[in-house]
Amino acid sequence: MRDTYIAVVGPSAATPAEHALGEEIGRRIAEAGAVLVCGGMGGLMEAAASGCARAGGRSVGIVPGERASANPYLTVAVATGMGEGRNAIVVRTADVVIAVAGEFGTLSEIALALKMGKPVVGLRTWEVTRPGRDADPIVRVDDPGHAVATALDLARSVAGR
Amino acid sequence: MRDTYIAVVGPSAATPAEHALGEEIGRRIAEAGAVLVCGGMGGLMEAAASGCARAGGRSVGIVPGERASANPYLTVAVATGMGEGRNAIVVRTADVVIAVAGEFGTLSEIALALKMGKPVVGLRTWEVTRPGRDADPIVRVDDPGHAVATALDLARSVAGR
Amino acid sequence: MRDTYIAVVGPSAATPAEHALGEEIGRRIAEAGAVLVCGGMGGLMEAAASGCARAGGRSVGIVPGERASANPYLTVAVATGMGEGRNAIVVRTADVVIAVAGEFGTLSEIALALKMGKPVVGLRTWEVTRPGRDADPIVRVDDPGHAVATALDLARSVAGR
Amino acid sequence: MRDTYIAVVGPSAATPAEHALGEEIGRRIAEAGAVLVCGGMGGLMEAAASGCARAGGRSVGIVPGERASANPYLTVAVATGMGEGRNAIVVRTADVVIAVAGEFGTLSEIALALKMGKPVVGLRTWEVTRPGRDADPIVRVDDPGHAVATALDLARSVAGR
Repeated sequence: MRDTYIAVVGPSAATPAEHALGEEIGRRIAEAGAVLVCGGMGGLMEAAASGCARAGGRSVGIVPGERASANPYLTVAVATGMGEGRNAIVVRTADVVIAVAGEFGTLSEIALALKMGKPVVGLRTWEVTRPGRDADPIVRVDDPGHAVATALDLARSVAGR
Repeated sequence: MRDTYIAVVGPSAATPAEHALGEEIGRRIAEAGAVLVCGGMGGLMEAAASGCARAGGRSVGIVPGERASANPYLTVAVATGMGEGRNAIVVRTADVVIAVAGEFGTLSEIALALKMGKPVVGLRTWEVTRPGRDADPIVRVDDPGHAVATALDLARSVAGR
Repeated sequence: MRDTYIAVVGPSAATPAEHALGEEIGRRIAEAGAVLVCGGMGGLMEAAASGCARAGGRSVGIVPGERASANPYLTVAVATGMGEGRNAIVVRTADVVIAVAGEFGTLSEIALALKMGKPVVGLRTWEVTRPGRDADPIVRVDDPGHAVATALDLARSVAGR
Repeated sequence: MRDTYIAVVGPSAATPAEHALGEEIGRRIAEAGAVLVCGGMGGLMEAAASGCARAGGRSVGIVPGERASANPYLTVAVATGMGEGRNAIVVRTADVVIAVAGEFGTLSEIALALKMGKPVVGLRTWEVTRPGRDADPIVRVDDPGHAVATALDLARSVAGR
């Protein structure tokens, strides 16, 4: 069976509360035997990679510039040299995306995932609406455990299509 | 003086009303002597390129695949072969972005523009909000004339920084 | 009928002799009604764009960074923010590639074109060989007129496949 | 101390002899505690990833399309959706490149590495020459052990600059 890849996207400058969320999400992804994908930088990305590493999991960080900028907790870092263009690679590499809080970069990753038809699980993150469009395209959760469990379920249902 | 580049982003399948908006926006960009940037495909992108061409303006379409998929109204088409990853190039090429209606791809272009610090003018398009964040980051307008005039003003103020 | 797009690739610091070659190639591309594609920077790229502009032709420059770095002779400039990664876009946008002299960047564009199955016309440029491989994959020419005529022939034969 | 990343580039359809070379190179990279970077597909890339996995090493495969196309021996696979454009990411992610035999894609990776100022170690691979340029820019070796030892030396000397 193929591995499940879960992207965790969020702010590069995280509050302590967001950092704790990121760490727990990373740890739970590792415990589930899934692979963590992230943008490889600091803040929430570093928190998730750190949690994943501590639980013995695998992670890949896809950075906008050179490898030297990557956080030190990743199993491997990939240097794109593409700036914000790397967000599309983060999302394409994942089966499902968990978005935590975040700024405009996170919003772009949410949108790119939805555009590629990949499920997005949201924790305290963006709301996106358009006149004439009803449903929230993001699956909302309240805590890290629920986020990872939902992401795993969604990844399975996408794989089963 | 450097040319002003205005990206027009919107749905690849446009309603007749959206098509008319796109055409007028393209025409007004040409009349202002600015360069139209778009994703190069059908729908709103084609409408804008068509309006621009009819008014004798310059346009560039940056397509996700090969050049053969580009609409026929562009001055030049650029083939990225990068899929949704090309959205970052559309936005980076522009000084300012006008978003009209649109689906998730349009939302990703709005988000990438905001992430890159470029102004976004919105016409019947996405609303994005986040708990704890107040202001709407998109400058709302009601018609094509207002959209292009606002985009030109914003491009000037960015250039003057 | 679709336009023919010809990429001209070569050094960003050109000798006066190379500059003259670039200008004549750009002019002849314009006179043939084809579109010039280049990397948008200085040296041979600027020479070709300048020759093209003087003859009233269309050109697009696809730059590695931001639009401000583009040479001033382009019809439109596209900002990729992808560094050397943009070389693949220069080549993908073209039907055929003319390589003039050049350094390693030019060599990468020759190789990417051959990999994509696009013909490469070479003027005083790289030779590439591999043990066990006989034929030179580059069509060698001696002057700008021959380069553009050969490129147009090759583009037609590719289109006719 | 930072990890050393070594890219192994070569043909996607390898002969048995090339496959054996790839496996031994992958194994020796793992034994040296370095990270293997490759294009993630079959042939020499798969051979190297397989050798690396058997020796308990870490590898990342950066594929042109979707993750499902990656070979099964990688620690992690990254999906770029960028076609040949991903070659620049393979090279940028590495400190040094080992090229084994190969076709035009391999040649493009050699050229991109040289353009980025990264050392290239060559085993039965391309020769590139240009009139007026003397030295071979590729460090030639005769066997996998020598290839990896040379790559590690070169990576150290680049890091020490």
